[in-house]
Amino acid sequence: MSDEIAENGTANGDVPEIELIIKASTIDGRRKGACLFCQEYFMDLYLLAELKTISLKVTTVDMQKPPPDFRTNFEATHPPILIDNGLAILENEKIERHIMKSVPGGHNLFVQDKEVASLIENLYSKLKLVLVRKDEQKSASLRAHLGRIDGLLERRGTRFLTGDTMCCFDCELMPRLQHIRVAGKYFVDFEIPTSFRSLWRYMYHMYQLDAFTQSCPADQDIINHYKLQQALKMKKHEELETPTFTTSIPVDVNDSNAEE
Amino acid sequence: MSDEIAENGTANGDVPEIELIIKASTIDGRRKGACLFCQEYFMDLYLLAELKTISLKVTTVDMQKPPPDFRTNFEATHPPILIDNGLAILENEKIERHIMKSVPGGHNLFVQDKEVASLIENLYSKLKLVLVRKDEQKSASLRAHLGRIDGLLERRGTRFLTGDTMCCFDCELMPRLQHIRVAGKYFVDFEIPTSFRSLWRYMYHMYQLDAFTQSCPADQDIINHYKLQQALKMKKHEELETPTFTTSIPVDVNDSNAEE
Repeated sequence: MSDEIAENGTANGDVPEIELIIKASTIDGRRKGACLFCQEYFMDLYLLAELKTISLKVTTVDMQKPPPDFRTNFEATHPPILIDNGLAILENEKIERHIMKSVPGGHNLFVQDKEVASLIENLYSKLKLVLVRKDEQKSASLRAHLGRIDGLLERRGTRFLTGDTMCCFDCELMPRLQHIRVAGKYFVDFEIPTSFRSLWRYMYHMYQLDAFTQSCPADQDIINHYKLQQALKMKKHEELETPTFTTSIPVDVNDSNAEE
Repeated sequence: MSDEIAENGTANGDVPEIELIIKASTIDGRRKGACLFCQEYFMDLYLLAELKTISLKVTTVDMQKPPPDFRTNFEATHPPILIDNGLAILENEKIERHIMKSVPGGHNLFVQDKEVASLIENLYSKLKLVLVRKDEQKSASLRAHLGRIDGLLERRGTRFLTGDTMCCFDCELMPRLQHIRVAGKYFVDFEIPTSFRSLWRYMYHMYQLDAFTQSCPADQDIINHYKLQQALKMKKHEELETPTFTTSIPVDVNDSNAEE
């Protein structure tokens, strides 16, 4: 295991200790990586640790050189991994379910709000399309989606998505907004319009919160995350091709003066 | 050691056996890689093997998973590596010098021609600039340089650079022309003008030669070579930066209605 980077709450036996294993940065194995689900569950659990219903231990693992005991225990499984009372939970949906059903205080995070749920659901896939296609149509679609979130925040007038306290939807949305902001700007010069005042106000509040700032990767880690993805995708493209050899000639030299 | 991919000449003790270790493809470890110096010395030695002054054994090594005996013998040294009578020569300049001075027949390849030497010397660095800068000025400079080579070939009227037989300059130039052709086209849509008829005729003759076709990497391997270089360079860029966190807000929300 790598460094322990945060410990919150008390570990005196009054509250259960929950360990979250997250991916390290691909640049510096001691830093947090740009893994969206890692940050989402980090934020969920950080809020619970602040409420002192759990004690939280966050461990980063450098997947480029995982420590031997990590490989022994989890083989090829990638973080996030949640460990509760000796039980390791490896799949994202099961981690979410475990936080909601079994971690003390967790059920309070899981607010029912169908409008918000469906509004934020496909946002991130639009960023991926913008990064892959790099055309204005995809950027416009992402911008329109952000506009709808801005509209909801303005209409509701609340600090967060479902009220004045954070819930699971905020922990889901904000890491994705940060990726959209940082990677969108870097790769395709995409900017969240300043006219989305309610959305910016929402992000402003998030930037003040320890749950967000403690879990947030550096800009460089977000950018590098997408660069590596693109490099792997580019490489795959050539791997699938049958090798070809460019040895044809575009001009007519072989008939006229080639056989001199 | 990986597969042996070519054996020429006789190995009956009449002529010395020279082994050349070359880098494998980064796509398929069984294929030849897009290493310019590997191909250059491969071609030099192939010509000597055709003349039966040596017997040539070419071995490809997949540097992503080098076999244990390669790591034991050569540690972090990258191919090309020339092995002559149990002696391993690891540096490019020393390999060239060894072929010229010590490999039977080698001195014939090393023709004295200052005009050709200075003409081809900086060509490849211009491709690198085109791939990095991607501007028309750099492309024009590369095109002009190719034009000067075309001019020399036209003026001399010979099949190869220094006469009607291949020499070390041809083994140096042609692999680089192939990289310019394949990578230039792929990354920046650069094309060698069809008006460079003498240059195309030169390439046409090369494409007929076993020394070239046996040593030439696939187009995909050439393309992937530069993609990996770019990905590593991109990664390095972020590695050198101090981590920053974008948490500023471009609109004025904190003064007006943020502290609600």
